[in-house]
Amino acid sequence: MRAVPMSQVEIRDQFWEPRQQTNRSITVPHLFSELERAGNIPNLRLAAERKREGYQGPVYMDSDLYKAMEAAAYVLQLYPDDPIREKLDEVIGILERAQTPEGYLNSYFQVVAPERRWTNLRDDHELYCAGHLIEAAVAHYEATGSDRLLKVATRYADYIDSVFGDAPGKRLGYCGHPEIELALFRLYRATGEKRYRDLARFFLLNRGKKIFAQEHNIPLEQYDGTIWQDNVPLTEHREIVGHAVRAAYLFAGATDLVDETGDERVLQMLLRVWENTISRRTYITGGIGNEARHEGFTRDYELPNRTAYQETCASIALIFWAHRMGLLLEEARFFDALERALYNGALAGIALDGKNFYYVNPLESDGTHHRRPWYACACCPPNIARLIASLGGYLYAQTESDLWVNLYVESRAKLSLAGREAVLQVRTNYPWDGTIEVQVVEGAPLEFGLHLRIPDWCAQPRLTLNGKPLPLEIQKGYAVVRRLWQPEDRLALELPMTPLFMEAHPRVEADRWQVAIQRGPLVYCLEEIDQSAPLERMAVDTTSPLRYRWEPNLLNGIGVIEGGAVVLDDDSAWGNRLYRPLARRQRATFRAIPYYAWHNRQPCPMRVWMPVG
Amino acid sequence: MRAVPMSQVEIRDQFWEPRQQTNRSITVPHLFSELERAGNIPNLRLAAERKREGYQGPVYMDSDLYKAMEAAAYVLQLYPDDPIREKLDEVIGILERAQTPEGYLNSYFQVVAPERRWTNLRDDHELYCAGHLIEAAVAHYEATGSDRLLKVATRYADYIDSVFGDAPGKRLGYCGHPEIELALFRLYRATGEKRYRDLARFFLLNRGKKIFAQEHNIPLEQYDGTIWQDNVPLTEHREIVGHAVRAAYLFAGATDLVDETGDERVLQMLLRVWENTISRRTYITGGIGNEARHEGFTRDYELPNRTAYQETCASIALIFWAHRMGLLLEEARFFDALERALYNGALAGIALDGKNFYYVNPLESDGTHHRRPWYACACCPPNIARLIASLGGYLYAQTESDLWVNLYVESRAKLSLAGREAVLQVRTNYPWDGTIEVQVVEGAPLEFGLHLRIPDWCAQPRLTLNGKPLPLEIQKGYAVVRRLWQPEDRLALELPMTPLFMEAHPRVEADRWQVAIQRGPLVYCLEEIDQSAPLERMAVDTTSPLRYRWEPNLLNGIGVIEGGAVVLDDDSAWGNRLYRPLARRQRATFRAIPYYAWHNRQPCPMRVWMPVG
Repeated sequence: MRAVPMSQVEIRDQFWEPRQQTNRSITVPHLFSELERAGNIPNLRLAAERKREGYQGPVYMDSDLYKAMEAAAYVLQLYPDDPIREKLDEVIGILERAQTPEGYLNSYFQVVAPERRWTNLRDDHELYCAGHLIEAAVAHYEATGSDRLLKVATRYADYIDSVFGDAPGKRLGYCGHPEIELALFRLYRATGEKRYRDLARFFLLNRGKKIFAQEHNIPLEQYDGTIWQDNVPLTEHREIVGHAVRAAYLFAGATDLVDETGDERVLQMLLRVWENTISRRTYITGGIGNEARHEGFTRDYELPNRTAYQETCASIALIFWAHRMGLLLEEARFFDALERALYNGALAGIALDGKNFYYVNPLESDGTHHRRPWYACACCPPNIARLIASLGGYLYAQTESDLWVNLYVESRAKLSLAGREAVLQVRTNYPWDGTIEVQVVEGAPLEFGLHLRIPDWCAQPRLTLNGKPLPLEIQKGYAVVRRLWQPEDRLALELPMTPLFMEAHPRVEADRWQVAIQRGPLVYCLEEIDQSAPLERMAVDTTSPLRYRWEPNLLNGIGVIEGGAVVLDDDSAWGNRLYRPLARRQRATFRAIPYYAWHNRQPCPMRVWMPVG
Repeated sequence: MRAVPMSQVEIRDQFWEPRQQTNRSITVPHLFSELERAGNIPNLRLAAERKREGYQGPVYMDSDLYKAMEAAAYVLQLYPDDPIREKLDEVIGILERAQTPEGYLNSYFQVVAPERRWTNLRDDHELYCAGHLIEAAVAHYEATGSDRLLKVATRYADYIDSVFGDAPGKRLGYCGHPEIELALFRLYRATGEKRYRDLARFFLLNRGKKIFAQEHNIPLEQYDGTIWQDNVPLTEHREIVGHAVRAAYLFAGATDLVDETGDERVLQMLLRVWENTISRRTYITGGIGNEARHEGFTRDYELPNRTAYQETCASIALIFWAHRMGLLLEEARFFDALERALYNGALAGIALDGKNFYYVNPLESDGTHHRRPWYACACCPPNIARLIASLGGYLYAQTESDLWVNLYVESRAKLSLAGREAVLQVRTNYPWDGTIEVQVVEGAPLEFGLHLRIPDWCAQPRLTLNGKPLPLEIQKGYAVVRRLWQPEDRLALELPMTPLFMEAHPRVEADRWQVAIQRGPLVYCLEEIDQSAPLERMAVDTTSPLRYRWEPNLLNGIGVIEGGAVVLDDDSAWGNRLYRPLARRQRATFRAIPYYAWHNRQPCPMRVWMPVG
């Protein structure tokens, strides 16, 4: 199946559309303002003016701009009259002027260190930056029809293709930070130019040759390439290791490779590593990367909460990978993971105000972990912006004869199915309510197979057609209804959203004897501001029922979950004792809010996993 | 009150007397064998022979020998015919020969570095070693009546007194590791020589002058003397900080100072620091020192279990300090702390076999923390040996008119009370049973006040005299019965020993929402070998009753405690899931054993604090 592109999908819901509006009106302008302030755009102006000094920031500054440009392109797709078009055109002009005659384009290596071009592939992010340029260019081309940025990108890609490859005169190489691989597949699909596909394949299949050992004069026996995904050849990965974003970007590109070439060994590796990722190394909030030191992984089941890294970019990278796996294998489980990461780990990365961001997303905070308007390494803010803006592209997928609904968002999709134009309408108040109504509002009667994802969180889905129960026929995690759809047909899927206490596998020591709360796709958390006692003295009573209640005026409208709690005595009850016989504990009520909404009021302690009292 | 010395107390119980026998027949010979093997005794032989090479081990090797000699002296007090007398005499001969004409005695500084004598008071433990020599000497003199070792010690003390002090020609100084202070008070009490008391006072009241900054050329603003108890003057301590053993030895010596001089400012400091120690920085097992890095303290309520340090020597040091505080202030609470440290933190330091030792006593182990026959820093093995051998000296205290029973151990004490000789008999199966019978078996009728400690763990003590209930009159934590005791009077104290779940102050994060189990003075633990499931997957059910049962054939005879447990599913029930809705948990039974008895079978995981399921 192929994703139905965002250009054919119109989101008109209460959850995502306001976020896309905020993304357009606040986030994207904020990004460009920060990119001017922090130096990302000025750096490229210096390159355009052939200046050799004044560069600001780390070596990968261009990439943050490119991701913001990609987000802006999606905004233009959604809102063609948005004033960001002008800024985008200005920046494209800078890039056109900055690009060298041979096609190279990287402000750091043009302003600061021309002599060091391609000398430190491990650390210098040149191909990574190029990848983000390419993604922005494809998005801009598809959104606007203008090929100005695409020309810059293809010239650069052609130049890169002239440097790296198997052919005589070309060199072995790949980037310490994967990204260009998936970008080149996008460019190939947008342009049809097979050299880009082959170059992506070259970067992917040569990876693991430990070239960074030679590049940095490290004896092979002392070299550990794990963080750069250079520890083993691509087909030999068994676990997800190293830097989380690099790993998931790599595997997203590798999934494209399988899609394009059918490489069975790469597919087997992907299935193996996916299984390891999801069943041993993912937070309940859907994010990955458990430790700060390498922004990545340590070992199976090590998922600490207070020190969880769960970088926003890593949740997004997992979404990219999951989306490709789901499209490739037509299995709902990949979209289950995508949904979990989207509504929780990724979405927590941006404040409700649209201009404050988390880079690191712990599952427990003492109240001192704050979102910031910008970061010295500002990869996350534009990444979440491009995800939100392009969300329409994640909802549906199709073949000639079948349609898959992968995410439930109230929307309309224009489709070309069985040789005919049609419009599918989905109505739902997801993620707050699990009722989904599907109707072919244009183009019926039309025969096709409709595949509705049954989320892994839902134990008892129910399906009705025109009010009558329909037996569930589940294929690869989807309820499939194949029929000649009539204009008046209304298919209703009920996914009962019961608030649930969740537990983690007993090998996850950090969560042992604790519970999390989930309802539908949303993982909840407790913020101290909502409680009657200090959060560190509260436990939940799992024998008390959980109650869900819509709070229209809280945090832009959220469903809260309340339940029974037990509370440890305050200090005054203890006097100077340090230990005492176990006393009866006070009862109280707790209130939980969706994890994505935390830290949007006053800073205070927060927990996802709660002790049981 | 004054302690009734061990020479007047005959322990004849089922708990301590077998330990004193093992201590005599196995531990003390083992110590001397290891002291020969490891170099401690050979080092002194080298000194005796005026050799300048061949020294083995760290700078403080002599002190381990002196503590073993002190233990051997107590053994001779208990068992005058023990063959250790011969070894002791041999070593005393070595010391006599090794001592320099001026009185100095330290094998490291005689064999390795004579030129560095007294040059590094901070690190080189010279006065510390001297302190342990003095303690051994006093013990040997009191046990045997021989003054051979005492002469060596007094010559050394006189020499030290000629070097350090306020008088013209003497120097300022004190040891980086306190010990000599309390030793000099012992020497003063044994000899009546006031110079020793005054020298102890000098060392105590000058401490905190930050002399180690000058000694090591550290600018005062960069100097942190905490680990050496040189951060503030003695009277200005507010919390217990730094190295745990050093702190408690210092405060034990400071308590002697108050006892001898009535120094009110020092007393106020001691009360303040004691309160901080017991109500914020002590494990439930009675030990102190929560972290390995400085073998000491971090901050209030930080009491991690898996990484608990709780050095055996620190529990013993706390016992020394608590004993002195209790004698000084005649308050039961100090003996409560002493009892807790004795039966738990300290006693775990020695295996039931009498020849394997813990230096570090965690409250949780994954099964890889093992006792060893010896350590490169072998302070703990002889320390626990001298404590066990001298236990008789901790049971009773008296004034002219009153007698205090501070620890309940079946025994007889010869007393001089109200000008008459008397023998008091205590019968009990403590710590397994809380019934204590007291009788004046010789010397009655005799009028005196009997003070029986009501332990802090006992909620409902009962007292009967000749079978009739006696109202409890509690003074300073003791039940006081003042009467003309008749030969046939039998006073019975009942301290009901109900197995209890204990909880820690909520500020102790490591124990939050967990429980420990205690019965009488014994804190219990769970070893995996006794359980039906992996310990890491077990929690206790605090709604199930705890059952106590005597197991005569287990671990030399112990009372076990059984109760209800809940068990997490094994991996097979989880499949490849990482999270799932909270499932009903399996029920099981757990069995707990006294903490002191852990790791005397096969190595396996152990926990004191258990989650509640």
